[in-house]
Amino acid sequence: MHFNMIASGSAPSVVQIQLPDGSVKEFPGDVTPLAIAESISPRLAQAAIAARVGEKVTDLKRPVTETTDVQPVPVQILTEKDAASLGVLRHSCAHLMARAIMRVFPGVQLAFGPTTGNGYYYDLDLPHKLSEDDFARIEAEMQKLVEMAEPFERFITNRDEALAMLEGMGQKLKCEHIQSGLANEATVSFYRQGEFVDLCRGPHIPDAGRIKAFRLLSVAGAYWKGDASGQQLQRVYGTAWFSQKDLDAHLEQVNEAKRRDHRVLGKQLNLFSISPEVGAGLCLWLPKGATVRALLEEFIKGELLKRGYQPVYTPHIGRVELYETSGHFPYYRDSQFTPLYGHDGGQLVDFWIRKLQDGALSEADEKSLLASAKILGVEIPEYAAASGNLAKIEVLRTWEKQQERYLLKPMNCPHHAQIYKSMQRSYRDLPVRLAEFGTVYRHEQSGELNGMLRVRGLTQDDAHLFCTPEQVEEEFRATLQLVQFVLASVGLEDYRVQLSLRDPKSDKYVGSEENWQRAEASLRGVLTELNLPFTAREGEAAFYGPKADFMVKDCIGREWQLGTVQLDYNLPERFQLEYVGADNQAHRPVMIHRAPFGSMERFTGMLIEHFAGAFPLWLAPEQVRVLSISDKFEGYAREVEREFRAAGFRVTTDLRGAKINGKIRDAQIELIPYMLVVGGKDQENRTVSIRDRIEGDLGAVPLAEAIARLQQEVTEKRIRSVAKPAPAPATSNEGENYAD
Amino acid sequence: MHFNMIASGSAPSVVQIQLPDGSVKEFPGDVTPLAIAESISPRLAQAAIAARVGEKVTDLKRPVTETTDVQPVPVQILTEKDAASLGVLRHSCAHLMARAIMRVFPGVQLAFGPTTGNGYYYDLDLPHKLSEDDFARIEAEMQKLVEMAEPFERFITNRDEALAMLEGMGQKLKCEHIQSGLANEATVSFYRQGEFVDLCRGPHIPDAGRIKAFRLLSVAGAYWKGDASGQQLQRVYGTAWFSQKDLDAHLEQVNEAKRRDHRVLGKQLNLFSISPEVGAGLCLWLPKGATVRALLEEFIKGELLKRGYQPVYTPHIGRVELYETSGHFPYYRDSQFTPLYGHDGGQLVDFWIRKLQDGALSEADEKSLLASAKILGVEIPEYAAASGNLAKIEVLRTWEKQQERYLLKPMNCPHHAQIYKSMQRSYRDLPVRLAEFGTVYRHEQSGELNGMLRVRGLTQDDAHLFCTPEQVEEEFRATLQLVQFVLASVGLEDYRVQLSLRDPKSDKYVGSEENWQRAEASLRGVLTELNLPFTAREGEAAFYGPKADFMVKDCIGREWQLGTVQLDYNLPERFQLEYVGADNQAHRPVMIHRAPFGSMERFTGMLIEHFAGAFPLWLAPEQVRVLSISDKFEGYAREVEREFRAAGFRVTTDLRGAKINGKIRDAQIELIPYMLVVGGKDQENRTVSIRDRIEGDLGAVPLAEAIARLQQEVTEKRIRSVAKPAPAPATSNEGENYAD
Repeated sequence: MHFNMIASGSAPSVVQIQLPDGSVKEFPGDVTPLAIAESISPRLAQAAIAARVGEKVTDLKRPVTETTDVQPVPVQILTEKDAASLGVLRHSCAHLMARAIMRVFPGVQLAFGPTTGNGYYYDLDLPHKLSEDDFARIEAEMQKLVEMAEPFERFITNRDEALAMLEGMGQKLKCEHIQSGLANEATVSFYRQGEFVDLCRGPHIPDAGRIKAFRLLSVAGAYWKGDASGQQLQRVYGTAWFSQKDLDAHLEQVNEAKRRDHRVLGKQLNLFSISPEVGAGLCLWLPKGATVRALLEEFIKGELLKRGYQPVYTPHIGRVELYETSGHFPYYRDSQFTPLYGHDGGQLVDFWIRKLQDGALSEADEKSLLASAKILGVEIPEYAAASGNLAKIEVLRTWEKQQERYLLKPMNCPHHAQIYKSMQRSYRDLPVRLAEFGTVYRHEQSGELNGMLRVRGLTQDDAHLFCTPEQVEEEFRATLQLVQFVLASVGLEDYRVQLSLRDPKSDKYVGSEENWQRAEASLRGVLTELNLPFTAREGEAAFYGPKADFMVKDCIGREWQLGTVQLDYNLPERFQLEYVGADNQAHRPVMIHRAPFGSMERFTGMLIEHFAGAFPLWLAPEQVRVLSISDKFEGYAREVEREFRAAGFRVTTDLRGAKINGKIRDAQIELIPYMLVVGGKDQENRTVSIRDRIEGDLGAVPLAEAIARLQQEVTEKRIRSVAKPAPAPATSNEGENYAD
Repeated sequence: MHFNMIASGSAPSVVQIQLPDGSVKEFPGDVTPLAIAESISPRLAQAAIAARVGEKVTDLKRPVTETTDVQPVPVQILTEKDAASLGVLRHSCAHLMARAIMRVFPGVQLAFGPTTGNGYYYDLDLPHKLSEDDFARIEAEMQKLVEMAEPFERFITNRDEALAMLEGMGQKLKCEHIQSGLANEATVSFYRQGEFVDLCRGPHIPDAGRIKAFRLLSVAGAYWKGDASGQQLQRVYGTAWFSQKDLDAHLEQVNEAKRRDHRVLGKQLNLFSISPEVGAGLCLWLPKGATVRALLEEFIKGELLKRGYQPVYTPHIGRVELYETSGHFPYYRDSQFTPLYGHDGGQLVDFWIRKLQDGALSEADEKSLLASAKILGVEIPEYAAASGNLAKIEVLRTWEKQQERYLLKPMNCPHHAQIYKSMQRSYRDLPVRLAEFGTVYRHEQSGELNGMLRVRGLTQDDAHLFCTPEQVEEEFRATLQLVQFVLASVGLEDYRVQLSLRDPKSDKYVGSEENWQRAEASLRGVLTELNLPFTAREGEAAFYGPKADFMVKDCIGREWQLGTVQLDYNLPERFQLEYVGADNQAHRPVMIHRAPFGSMERFTGMLIEHFAGAFPLWLAPEQVRVLSISDKFEGYAREVEREFRAAGFRVTTDLRGAKINGKIRDAQIELIPYMLVVGGKDQENRTVSIRDRIEGDLGAVPLAEAIARLQQEVTEKRIRSVAKPAPAPATSNEGENYAD
């Protein structure tokens, strides 16, 4: 095959290159990162995987001036040691996998093959239904390709040529993507590797020989462009690493994660249940899970009161108009449950408004609309009936406004804004900190639901702070400290903060320039002051304010986005919130949204996996179990139980006729932190023989001392039960994933 | 006017009458209660108002054999001293009022005039818009009628005659009632008083002269038969008593209730807010109200844990199918919010199903239905399109079943049943007691909403107990004791229990004969054993089980229905709940629904009125306020605040430059239980001058002693703040209201 290649502009004659050590060197205008690496050392060139040119990761062989036109050009050669290289490797491995599948099975249509946090996948359409049984063959074919070590070659064509080429290859999905997704591009880029040619933005590794360790993981269903009404595809997941050791460690982590799967443990330990009768994504918290949640809630409630928060309670629904004011409706409508009504007609009007918004009606639809209107007693005047959709929508809207229409709340903020508004506020009253365990509902796609981690009903440990711009720094500091305190209480100490800031070049932001500058400076300052490791990400802030997210590592090295703190200049404006300043004038407060846990569902799900179900003593649903050696000691066993209960413990007694070893085994399986074995000696001396779930028998201890010892562990919120396996390899691509 | 009177059957020649003292006497077959009273004593006949014949209250002049055919007939002569007489008096007074209004204003159409708990009303249609300005004229006319002392005379006609008569009088609403509401009656009864003739079941007092004290109270809008889409009427409220003293006491109680109105106090004290933006009937709990609620919740949570309850959390929605199984849908649909959906088409189908259920479609509707179906991609097959509504409903239902359809939960029980079902249960695990502060939603008519007392979103302090039939008695006892304990904690000691039992003659009940007998005997036995005053009401039980309601008197003598305990044989059946018995067989558990407070909204609203906003120390949102005499003592004032906070108090400090008297006045207005005034002497001696909201200055006390003294009051949950006015007269008709 031969294609015309298009050079992307003419290169300058010389270019200034700035290396990571700050030094600047001059190179020919068409210099590539590979050439730069060679100029530094042949070993570096050998080790190079890709390069960071400016802020972009790029191919080694692509002239740096194609990537940026700033001068001097910052260039960093990326090797296996750089986290960003993993994403490049995996994306190349995705190509390799697709190529191997095409070699093994006929009739493959390529869709997309992006990287994920720990690997990659490729969506494909092919007549053969793939299964894990096919993996060995595909992997063998991939291994052959690795050994051939062919290079990844980039080339560019214009749209017509690209379409002709892809049609020639029979790649209809790629053609469709050029015509719809890439409709505004004059040229597109491809990567070729042997006979395999793929529409792709890159970058890629120099050649397939760099792939040292890979594994196919699973196969699942997927939809073309994620649209559930579109074409169904097969998605093959895989992973790739720079060494077998890293791959093994990762697979061990995956296995460890499987052993800790909160859905499995949640069922085994009777923590929570999801019943199809109630609905997908809607958790039923069983008594043991509910106990953990109640303890977490009580703990944080106490902290909040100490820190000047005030409790509120708000309903789980609100009038649709409330969310129109806040902007949550109809903007987020696709992830919301439909509105509900006080009476039945509203549903019909709602349907027709959507229908009219979607576009022109057929003649039959028009008739149906008029019939519906008649049924409801909505009068559509002549002029509206004869004119376009907007006039009709207007009529229906007017009618609808007179009806009650509610939304299951997707957020608590509009309700809290109403509470702020319920009385006049003076600067002396600020900050006002309103806290609620607020349950919100979002209609996530059923394919995305995952136990407690991705649900349709979630309870946020939510609060909204209303403060003056001057108070933002102090409130932000206090909030971060609260999140740190809360994470420490469950032994989570390894985290970093993602700080999302404005794109200084954009003007899409609400709130004054002065407030943004002050806020962003405060946020950076406070993070530095608190010694919190953070990554500032310019341009990642929402239009309404900067935010900080806690990225927390669990004990097997997986990173979770938990607590969040978000500044908001928008809602105070939309709800016209005010306070009277010292100058006796009305001012607009700043709003801070924050949730240290995030949601009770997600946090508890994460904790189940982090602790592998073995909660620390202060959180264990059943803390202590008294085991009588025989029924002769039932009286004393009950007394021990009573004493522990009176001391505030969650305690049960196993009085079954079973042998003591059986009782111990059951308690171990149920992950009870402490067993108290009582027999004749114990009864005589008023002792208990403590058996630690982790360390085993600790010997006989006077009853009062046993209580004191365990109380101490509760008070300290001591964490003893996290089994820490060997540290896993870097697990995320630090936000640099590759698609196409 | 002359009408044919119909005698209701021929009387026997003699009849046995049993008097309240148990004695049985023989009377002529047409004997009336009046004649019986005269036979006892002329004074009794003079004092008689009405009579109880069998279980029914009846006119004095109506032969007893018209009321019952059991023999001997139990007859009790009712005088002013019997609570049941009040209802008769008030119903007669309603007639009197309607007659007076007809004399004063032309064109009055009579609707219904029933009694209420403390009075009566009459719904009328008339051209003049009534206002309180008209009350003096109407009352003067009523007084004239009282002085005329004309008798109330009962007569019976057949339907045709009744219609002819009412048409002649121009009473169209009454005609409509005969044609619809009384369509199955062969004859109807009237009462005549002078020129006033009213379709009415009675009973009535002998003559208008017995009305000693009455008052018109207010006028409001109403609908014919309560149907908001029907004719609008005017409703005039009034009250009547047997003495001016009782009327005055009642009016004083009404005024006292107005002063205690929780809606007014709720606003004044920033306890709660209802915002039209969020929706009618949906409470926003402001921080102070939320604090009271949180304290009540914490208190009861602690009690529940001690009493072997387990916490659970469940979502606020569930699939419609869940409520079809439970029977809550579509049975209670009119008081529910409409279903909601995961996607939009469902609303349309739902609309059409309702439409088809309502009756035949017009030709235009048929077309509209087919168009709707087409839009949704629901295929309505030929046979269904051509046949009746049922076939179409079937098709739509089948399609709908494949969609997700949820209901905002009106009850927590279906969710708790699912939790019970989530694991296998053995008799050894029972009773299982699942507790949740579960927020439920019901779409009450907007006219019936009332602050926190009648709402659309309410949080029940709910629990469901699953037990064996043998455990019912013990669980019932424990539950009653819990309710008693909870009521005592807020100083409510004056209550009785309404026990609703089976009608032994009916077969509408689910659950075995044996279980009902055992349960009812247990309930009676436990109530007696606990010395709880109770009224057993046969035939008042729901079809699914007997129940006990706590009727609680507040400090101004009003009775509130609060805590409730309900047995349920139905839901365990519907949800197929089981446990494995000692016999290794599957058995059906009994379910007990119970809520000591009822709902947090209603209970808190009641408490606000009971305490007139001045909560006892343990519940006060702000317990203590430190008042500095001048800014010289700011440091010490803050120290006092810190000490109290550290001791667990909700405390603030008023450091304003204002004078001490102004600070005291503000704290008094905000109903803060204790003020701590601090000045020079206090700082020197480390004392505080305690000022009690009720008793005023208590003098200087060492700081530590002040803390200890107040802590003691909290621990004891001491109630000091209920101002008890003079006892009010009997305030309810003991369940005997009269309508028509």
